[in-house]
Formats: sequence, C-alpha cells, structure tokens
Amino acid sequence: MKYLLFEFLIVIFFVYVQCEITYIEVKYPLKGKRSAPNAVWPHPQQINISNDLLYIRPNDLAVYSNLQTCDIIAKAIERYKPIFFPPTLDMKQPSSNMENILQNLTLNIKGNIQCEKYIELNSNEAYNLTINEKIALVEAYSVWGLLRGLETFSQLIYINEQNYIVINNSVDIIDSPRFRHRGVMLDSARHFLPVSIIKKNLDVMSYNKLNVFHWHLVDDQSFPFESKTFPNLSLAGAYTPDHVYTPADVADIIEHARLRGIRVIPEIDTPGHTYSWSKSMPELITVCWAHGKPYQSIYSIQGEMEIFNPSEPRVYSTMDALLREIHERFPSNYIHLGMDEVYDKCWLSNPNIRQWMVDNNILSTKNLHKYYADQILDIVRNISVTPIVWQDVWDEQVELPPGTIIQVWKDSSDNIEFSSWASYLNRAANEGYNVILSSPWYINYISYGKYNTDASVMNLEFFKYYEVEPLQQFSGSNEAKERILGGEACLWGEFVDGTNLLSRFWPKAAAVAERLWSSADVNNSEEAQFRLDAHRCRLLRRGIPAQPILNGYCGNYELGMSKSMINHPSFNYDKLTRTETIIPSSGKSFASLSSSSSRMFSYKLYHIVYLILSLFFVYFCRK
Amino acid sequence: MKYLLFEFLIVIFFVYVQCEITYIEVKYPLKGKRSAPNAVWPHPQQINISNDLLYIRPNDLAVYSNLQTCDIIAKAIERYKPIFFPPTLDMKQPSSNMENILQNLTLNIKGNIQCEKYIELNSNEAYNLTINEKIALVEAYSVWGLLRGLETFSQLIYINEQNYIVINNSVDIIDSPRFRHRGVMLDSARHFLPVSIIKKNLDVMSYNKLNVFHWHLVDDQSFPFESKTFPNLSLAGAYTPDHVYTPADVADIIEHARLRGIRVIPEIDTPGHTYSWSKSMPELITVCWAHGKPYQSIYSIQGEMEIFNPSEPRVYSTMDALLREIHERFPSNYIHLGMDEVYDKCWLSNPNIRQWMVDNNILSTKNLHKYYADQILDIVRNISVTPIVWQDVWDEQVELPPGTIIQVWKDSSDNIEFSSWASYLNRAANEGYNVILSSPWYINYISYGKYNTDASVMNLEFFKYYEVEPLQQFSGSNEAKERILGGEACLWGEFVDGTNLLSRFWPKAAAVAERLWSSADVNNSEEAQFRLDAHRCRLLRRGIPAQPILNGYCGNYELGMSKSMINHPSFNYDKLTRTETIIPSSGKSFASLSSSSSRMFSYKLYHIVYLILSLFFVYFCRK
Repeated sequence: MKYLLFEFLIVIFFVYVQCEITYIEVKYPLKGKRSAPNAVWPHPQQINISNDLLYIRPNDLAVYSNLQTCDIIAKAIERYKPIFFPPTLDMKQPSSNMENILQNLTLNIKGNIQCEKYIELNSNEAYNLTINEKIALVEAYSVWGLLRGLETFSQLIYINEQNYIVINNSVDIIDSPRFRHRGVMLDSARHFLPVSIIKKNLDVMSYNKLNVFHWHLVDDQSFPFESKTFPNLSLAGAYTPDHVYTPADVADIIEHARLRGIRVIPEIDTPGHTYSWSKSMPELITVCWAHGKPYQSIYSIQGEMEIFNPSEPRVYSTMDALLREIHERFPSNYIHLGMDEVYDKCWLSNPNIRQWMVDNNILSTKNLHKYYADQILDIVRNISVTPIVWQDVWDEQVELPPGTIIQVWKDSSDNIEFSSWASYLNRAANEGYNVILSSPWYINYISYGKYNTDASVMNLEFFKYYEVEPLQQFSGSNEAKERILGGEACLWGEFVDGTNLLSRFWPKAAAVAERLWSSADVNNSEEAQFRLDAHRCRLLRRGIPAQPILNGYCGNYELGMSKSMINHPSFNYDKLTRTETIIPSSGKSFASLSSSSSRMFSYKLYHIVYLILSLFFVYFCRK
Repeated sequence: MKYLLFEFLIVIFFVYVQCEITYIEVKYPLKGKRSAPNAVWPHPQQINISNDLLYIRPNDLAVYSNLQTCDIIAKAIERYKPIFFPPTLDMKQPSSNMENILQNLTLNIKGNIQCEKYIELNSNEAYNLTINEKIALVEAYSVWGLLRGLETFSQLIYINEQNYIVINNSVDIIDSPRFRHRGVMLDSARHFLPVSIIKKNLDVMSYNKLNVFHWHLVDDQSFPFESKTFPNLSLAGAYTPDHVYTPADVADIIEHARLRGIRVIPEIDTPGHTYSWSKSMPELITVCWAHGKPYQSIYSIQGEMEIFNPSEPRVYSTMDALLREIHERFPSNYIHLGMDEVYDKCWLSNPNIRQWMVDNNILSTKNLHKYYADQILDIVRNISVTPIVWQDVWDEQVELPPGTIIQVWKDSSDNIEFSSWASYLNRAANEGYNVILSSPWYINYISYGKYNTDASVMNLEFFKYYEVEPLQQFSGSNEAKERILGGEACLWGEFVDGTNLLSRFWPKAAAVAERLWSSADVNNSEEAQFRLDAHRCRLLRRGIPAQPILNGYCGNYELGMSKSMINHPSFNYDKLTRTETIIPSSGKSFASLSSSSSRMFSYKLYHIVYLILSLFFVYFCRK
C-alpha cells in the first residue's frame, strides 16, 4: 500500500529541480568560448540572435502551418512536443498576461504548397527562421526545409536558471546545407541491430540534419534481410529467426526515416562478402580449393567458400530478382551494390573458374570482376536505379554508368595508388563521377577520446572527424565540384550492437553532420567542442545515451540520474507504441500538454483510471 | 482499454521463445574450441564435469544452508533467483516424477560456522562445488567462499535447446583465487557516476569474482563526496547538488558491495588532483604564479591554483578530520591516499612556498613532497589504517610504513627509470612492500576491438589484458611473492559516465578478473575468446549491456530485442527498490517463484490488485 501511495505521489507531483549547464576547467584551461545552451548544431549558414528573451508557456504555444494536412508536418509537431518540453523536467508556467510570451510558431511553405512523400538527393532543404514580434516563423520551399527549420527552432529553446522555458527574441536565420548527401552507414550483419535502436538512431540523425541512412543490410556473417522472393536467404542465413528484419520491420524503418526527411539506401554487397548466402544458395558461391581439394579454408586467406561465382548464370538471375524486390520495397532511387574487397585468391584456386576464364578469354581476376560488375550494372540499368559502389570497383577500372556514385573509403594507407582520399575525390569528380566521402569518417575506429600534440593535450577525438575538408584538394569546374555530393559517417559492426551503438556513435557522428551541413569556414574545433558538448547534453535530454566528449556534466537528466529520459516512452520504440495524432484543421495547439509528455502522462494515467473506477464503484454502492 | 488488455496479456502470458547460442565463422576461421554455454568465468582451479544432464524445476529447487540466519546468504539466494531463471525467458517445466531432476542446492560452511560481516584482504574465498546423486553442494570455510561457489553454480545452469533448464550431473569443482586483491577502479570525479550504475557494476564484479571496488571519489574536476565534517567541500566542489554521493548513497553502495563479498576502498587523492577543494577551501591550495603575478594559469603547465600547499597547517588538520570521517564511514581498513602526479611547477612558482622551503631547509620539491607525505602517513598511522598509494610517491623515495600497498600504474613509457611494470613489481615486493598491478589494465584506453599481427588478424582487444602475467619477471622468496597481492582494472572517467560505463568496461574487465582468479596456466587467449563471448551473453541475460567482442549474437535477450533484460527491475536500481527477503528457518524453496522474477511479478501485480479491488466493489454492490 505504501508502494501504491508512492506511485500516486509520483503521478501527481512533478516538482523536480533541473540544473543549468556550466563547465569546470581544470589545470588545462580549454581554449575557445563557452557555448550558450541554445547553440545550434550543425551551425546555420547565417544566424543573428538578440539577447532579450521570450517566455514560452507550454500550454499555450500554438503551432500553425499552411501545410495542415501533411502527415509529415503533423507528426513532426507531435514528435517535437517532448523535445520542446522535456517530459521529466520541471518547468515553470509564466503568467499568461505577461508581455514577453512567444505567441505561436508557424511553419509555412513558400511557392508550390505540396506535401512531398520522400526526400530525394536534390530536395530543397533550405529554410528561413525568424522570431519577431513574439511570432516564430519557419519558411521553406519544401516540407524538408520545414523539418530542418523545426529542428533548429527546437534547439533555440532552452530552460533557463529560473526554470522557465525561453527563447531569444529577434532571431534571424537563413540556412541551407552545404552538401546534399549527408549520411550514416550502419552494418546490421556483423551484429544484428534491433529495430528500436535503428529508429532511435534515425531520430538522432534528424537532430543533426543528416538525410541518408545507408543500410549495409547483409554480409558474410549474416543475412538478416527477409526477402519475399527468396525467404530462404534469411531463414538459413540470419543468426536466428529472431535476428531478421521482416517486411514489416523494413517498412517501419523506411516510414520512420521518411517522416524525418531521411532517405534509406539499402546495400546488397556482392560479389564479395556473400558467405551468408551460401547457407541457402551454395550454388552461387565459389568453392575455394587448396592442395587439390575443394572446400578448403586457409586462415587469413580464404574461407571454405566465398565470393559469388561469376561463371554461374543463377547468380545473375537471383540478383535480378532480388534487386527488383529491393527496388520495390525501398523508395530510394539508389541501390548500393557494394563491390568492395573482392579477394580473388579463392576464384583463382577453383579449377572450374580458371577453366571458365580461359574459355571466355578472361585473362585476369580484374577482368573477371569487371565481367561480374557489368552484368550487375546491366540489371540495375534495366530497373532504372542509380548504383552506388564502394571505390574498389572503380579502382579495378570497371567502367561505370554515368551518374554512378562512388563511395570513397580508402586512404593512402589502404591503397598506395593515390596519395589521399582528397586527391581521389578530385579525380573522380573531374572524370564525371558522383562521389561521397567516408575515408576519414570510420567512427568504429575508436580511440581514447583525446590525443596529444605539441600544441595541445586536449585535442579531442572528434577533432579528427571535424577537421576534414572534403574539398581541400579540389580543383576543377563548378560542375565537377557539384559532383562531390557529400559523405557518410560509417559504423562497422564487428564490435557494435544494441549495447553500444548509440553511445559509441554519438556525438562523434555529429561532427561529420556539421562538416557536411555548415559552411566550410565553420571549422574551429576549439569553438566547436563546447557547442558539441552542449549538443550532447541536448541529446541526453532527448533520451539518447550519447557519450561525453569533455570532462563535466549535463544535469540531473543524465543516464542513471533521477530525471533521465533514456528509457522514457517518448523517446523509445521497443515496448510502447507511439501514437501520433493528425494536425487539426487550423493549427495545432499544445493546450492539452502539461510539462510532462503526453506519453508519460497516459502511462501514469492507468492508476488514475483505476482509482476513479474504484471511487465510482464506492459511490454507486452507497446509493 | 485495448492498452489495459494488452498489459494484462503481458502479465498472464510469458510464452516466449528463447534461442540457443552458436557461432558463425567467416573467412578467417577462428582458432580454438567453441565454448559450452555453461563454461565458467573465471575458470576454476579444478573442474570435472560429466556429460549427462539433470533437469531443474524452477518451482521445486530448494536451497538449504547451515548458515540459515546469515543475511548475506539469504539475500544472495533471493538475488540469484532471476539469475537462475531469467525472468523474460520461457522455460519448460519438467514433470516432477522424472528421474533426473536436481533435488536441491546446499550451501554449507565447514568448521567455524559464522556470518562474517565484511570481506577482508585475507578472507578465505575457496570453495568446493559438487553435484552428485541429484544434490548440489557448495562447501566453504567462509560465507565468501559460499558466495563464490553460488556464482559458479549459477554459471553451470543453462537453458538447453528444448527450453529446459539443465545442469550437468557429476560436477566436481575445487576452486580458490590465485590473488587476494582483485579490483576495479572507477573514477567518479571526471564525470559523476550514478549510484544505480555503480551498483550494477558491483553486480558484474560479483559475477566475475572480483572483490575490491577502489573508488576514486574526488579529483580536480569535482568533489562529489558529501562529507559530514566538511559539507562545503561537495556543496561548492560538486558539479551540482544532484551530482553528489550523500551519506545514504555511500552507505547504500558499501552495503551493496558487502552483500556481494566486495570491499570498498575509498581514495582521497592528495596533494595533487585537488582543484575542486579550492572551491570551498582555497586556503589549502597553492596559488600558482607567473610573470610576478599570482593566480596565473599556463596552458598545459599549471592551473590558477593547484596542489595542496604543504606549508599550510590547515591542510593537515583538514586531512586528519576528513580521513577520520572516511575511516568511520568506510569499513575498509585501507584508505587510498593517491599521491600521484604532483606536478611541482606551481609549488616552485609561488614565492611564499619557496621562502618556506628555504626556512625549513627543504631543498627540493621531491623533499617537499616527502614532507607532505610524511605528515599524511602519520595521520593514517594514528587512525590505524593501512595506506595505499599510487607508485609516484615511492618513485620519489618517500619511505612508506610497512604494509603499505603500492599501486603500480606506470610503464616504461611513463618512467624510464624502470624497464617495465614487471620489474617494478619484482623490486617493490622484494623490498618488503605490498603491491597491486594496474599498468596493463587501463581499460579506458580503448581501441578498435582487434589488432593485426603477422600471425593473426583476429587478435581481440581483450587479449592485451588477458595475456598479462603479473609474475613474469618475479624472482625472490615465497614471502616476497605473497606481497604481490593482485591488481585492478581501472576505468578513468574523462570520457566515461552512465551512458557508456558498463558497455565500455565489460566484458573487457572480465579478462582481468580471470587473470587474477584463475591459475597462471589458464592463459590461452584463443580458447578464452569463446568462453568470454559466452560469458558476455550471460551478462546480457543478467541485464548488463556488455559489448560484443566477436562477430555473432547471443539471443533474443540482446539489448533492444524482445526479451531484453537490460531494463528489467530485477537487475536495476534506479526506480524500483529491491525488496529482499530473509531466508526461512529450514531452507529456502523457490516454490513461490514462477519463470518470471518475483520483482517483475509484483510490479505487474498492481494491475491485478486494482482489478480484484474493483471486482470486490462490484460484488459488494450487488449485495
């Protein structure tokens, strides 16, 4: 009974203390300027903010839009409620007759008013955000621009030392991304990544204005993608029947991404990295030979069987059917074909393949790879999809169709043929290819968190990701420059699963996000470190367990502390289903929302419902 | 209403599928032998296990002890329920009239039957575990041995492919630790570590038979320890009033550790690392000078003020009072005094200290450090506590009292005076000091997860921690050898807080645990990798987000998956309070326990209580 009472007290009283963010510098006074709690990440192209404040009444902030019936806007407004008003934190309600109250937020489309369905490479993400005369206005030419502006608006809000929600008055932001392709690559094959974590990761991507989820779906280790055409691929190739992405899961992830302005680009990596296919379709895979015997694995050289068998026609019919299915199920006009790391020793070890090469006048494994690539590129051309490939296949001088995107991941340490990724970008763009950069952004290569140089003992790990300039060696036409589409932060999954994905990736991947969104001259790591630290606290307030990048603290909403939001239903997708409401006809008011989120509230509501039920019975009884 | 129904369905139906653990090897077939799911970590000294199985009926396994009234045993039995029978997993109930059912588990003390209160350095942790004639028996000479045996028993249980809980019949284990001091150091000053996470970490320590929690309580960055004598230290020196360990928190952590056979050794690090003290007691701290002016910080050299001022008498009166309080509040007979990294440039910069040194005929900062250390060691001698110090103070040739423990953390890269930590251990032990080793076990220095050598591309990161032999260069008497007490895995907190502590530390720290417990010849990394991988899955089943060390998977209880136990109330301390019951007079039966844990059940019980209440009213009404 004591317990129940306690529960009720929790339900009724939300009188919590929330703490300000400050820093303590010790011994090594950090260079740079402290960040305001509302510093925007990634930094906008132009920003002017006054010093005077407007108060926000959680119960009175109306949100309007001239795109009322667009589900993307309606759901975004719903989603941002617990972001504007963190559900576990206490906030004071300023009196309604106060002068300086923000009246409303309007999200307006300029020009052709339409609710687009999917963001695309060339979608317009620019927006203007102004706060003037107690009215906040986001204007954009597309729903995607509105989403980016809404995110910026949410970052401008903060809880001040007196526990009021405030925002600076007279804000003027003109913003647009520097690069069009700003991605994150996750690998769900080395370890299965639960759907709930992928969705949380999509949330963090949207908080960083990233717009591509490159999904490395399958690999040697497992085949978690449940194909409708070839169900045996995952039946035999997934770790277990629990470690699969069902069609519903995939659709769920695509929809989650769509609502946040994120493209999902699936990768089906062939002809290497295909061991897991052999569990159901051994006929597709090359049997490796050694000492005159088939099925011979040699430690660190080859497995028993690996790499597709390019001489096998069923390889191409299977790929044709599978890529068609992928194209149907993923709205993206791009498919990543992989084509990396084809270690040809196994091909050459197999006498049948050697014979086939001779018969077909293919005199090197390079040409064999080219033969394979040509067949697959034909398939892709037939289904009108633009291919993306890892750079390896171009390194092998395979001619790629115009528009192909080459993903650069090697550096001089991997391939002595080019001096650096920068010169590679330069060359590829000037030769007419589209390129995206990943070489300096393999976030899985973790290190201690800081590194020493003569100049500093506090070079933070993220500096390495941040101090990358994609165009550093570029010289060429503006047209060629446009072909450098952007880049991706990659998190390979050998040592990553649900336990550590979010804390390992964030806020480091945010450094890549700012590099790809903001102006090239936003490049001062020592200024950025404080802004990124404030941003990581912001992520904690949104239920993301982003790890610390500096000594210090955020507040009582840290993981494990009394107001933590890490497991809050507003920011999680594992157990409770989010219910999302449609925007009403003339603007959505937050009138029904207290300082706790609606989700939190409805959860606790059970108890109240029960209580009322009981009281009702008692009343009924007395009669 | 749909929601409520859903909740009830969850309460009533626990029909879940749980998956077996297997491995997939790809391309690089791993050397070594696959681990059985019940492989014990750390490996026992002697173990014999038959192949035939006994079934365990969750509702029928009785646990007896001849130490019935000992709270440590009673609470351990309660605690192990959800470990024996993972609350979210489905397990079949074998028929009670089956032949091969494990009848009971008995935990018996041999010799002097007593319920000790606190484990000590020389406590006897040895135990024997036998399973014979359908009876499991753990025998030990102390309650601590029983705890270690109970942990081993819990690891022998597993859920087989048919979803029965089983254990091998005819088990014979004779086990005891190789080293007495098997510790973990956490740093709660660079980032505040929430109490709930520290307690979870103590749980994992007990799963690895570690027995010392070395608590680096305070440092330059913050002073989270709430002193009763000097409350201003944390009032001013903690990050915020939320970032403190209250007396109740400290007592809670000590009690949590005590029940698990873990000593808590507090560290109050002086005379360096004391900037946070200056917030409330600036008079204790040396003001640094530069260019003829006080309070001058110089980047990477000194702060405005740092290091205690050894010429200030109030330093010693404060330390005397604080260490007395520490000794009263921590049951340990050891206090860690720090005494590391005293960068003397600030001392020398201060004209008053220079003058004082001349006046007192102290001609070097080495001697100044010695002067300080002598005063503190006197205080510690007066309160009958054994000091532990980082090696630095001995490097400065300060004579330390007999029995002092020197913690070795440097390596040849830090101090060219000795060739390696191994020779240092050798020298210190032969000169009569006790020593513990940490140099090779700084787990905060993270790296990618594997490293390449000519022989292998799959040297896992933990190999570095595992392939350490503390006695590799030892030569000397057996008496001297005994002075090498063990070691500690350290996790410094510059980039660690609640978001990443558990996943970053585990299972890597488990490698140190096995090195310190098991025989020196249990040293085959390639065998250990599979056992450790199975152990990490075990940790996941106990709600610990330990990160993966190999490609692969565990089961549907992984973090983010349907049966995850990460947030299960049985394994968490943040919101619900664990209630632990006392063992009844003649053995504790699990009869009341279903496959779900009692905690889980009581949580869901609310709803049932409400329902019954409502029905009661209805019934009452009708009358």
